Amino acid sequence: MQFEEKTIERKEIYQGPIFQVVTDQVELPDGKGQAQRDLIFHNGAVAVLPITDEGKTILVKQYRKAIERTSVEIPAGKLEKGENADPQAAALRELEEEIGYTADLELLYDFYSAIGFCNERIKLYATTNLKKVENPRPQDADETLELLEVTLTEAKDLIQAGEICDAKTIMALQYWELSNK
Amino acid sequence: MQFEEKTIERKEIYQGPIFQVVTDQVELPDGKGQAQRDLIFHNGAVAVLPITDEGKTILVKQYRKAIERTSVEIPAGKLEKGENADPQAAALRELEEEIGYTADLELLYDFYSAIGFCNERIKLYATTNLKKVENPRPQDADETLELLEVTLTEAKDLIQAGEICDAKTIMALQYWELSNK
Repeated sequence: MQFEEKTIERKEIYQGPIFQVVTDQVELPDGKGQAQRDLIFHNGAVAVLPITDEGKTILVKQYRKAIERTSVEIPAGKLEKGENADPQAAALRELEEEIGYTADLELLYDFYSAIGFCNERIKLYATTNLKKVENPRPQDADETLELLEVTLTEAKDLIQAGEICDAKTIMALQYWELSNK
Repeated sequence: MQFEEKTIERKEIYQGPIFQVVTDQVELPDGKGQAQRDLIFHNGAVAVLPITDEGKTILVKQYRKAIERTSVEIPAGKLEKGENADPQAAALRELEEEIGYTADLELLYDFYSAIGFCNERIKLYATTNLKKVENPRPQDADETLELLEVTLTEAKDLIQAGEICDAKTIMALQYWELSNK
């Protein structure tokens, strides 16, 4: 079976600080004609499921402009330009900036967040040896974060309440529950 | 703690068939100044984890232009305009069009796929009473799909091999594994 959609023409719509928008005109396989594909190109991101010695996770409450409300999430952040070669370093930076901890990391999943139209790829890590950093790097100037330390049961209640409502955090909590069984 | 980022100015960058792109200039809380937020507005989507009487799931292999390769995923699709009031009907349509089945649906998760910059909200359903439809509605004209019927173990192997690589499908499979334990 033929799957590939060859690009006939690409038009750049927008290049911003976080993502690029393009419109591709593509040739469908098997002579099915042409179609338009609107695409978002993103540099990728990292996320970390921190687990403390007491068996709790540390979550971050923050405002998400795309949905005009706050959301409770695992620590995460975008890869800066040039960081693609060392995503673990980026994950450690976010862990330190957002919650003030460091750890050893293990890659759990490497996935696309919105595969239908966007190439954002997220590397999700688990922690061992989680420990506090003295004098951690400061949070980003445009971020306002509140930290929550919760058990798995409390985290699942936050999903039910809709306060946890993003894919990466739900995935991480499912993984935590599976690894506890 | 103040979280809200008030919009000072919104500039529309692009309105396409799948998503809208805007740039907001926002006022940060606590007098932290201003920041730019580039946002993608999307009408939302539905996804279904179909489980057969034999304890297998039915997955869909398709080409994803954003990553220029094929990917194996649970059946899913965008909400059409006006369908937001009845996402179950949209989920049943996608189930029939993509794999030729119908079922009773139960909502598992209602989540944002890429919460940092995009408001795409996905409703993920489980099935009971999954059964084949005679003369199902045809697939979309611009889609080329190959179906795979696999066990949970086989699906987990597809994650390891990178053929399953999207958030909604990994979430659905983790849910399946949790519900089996």
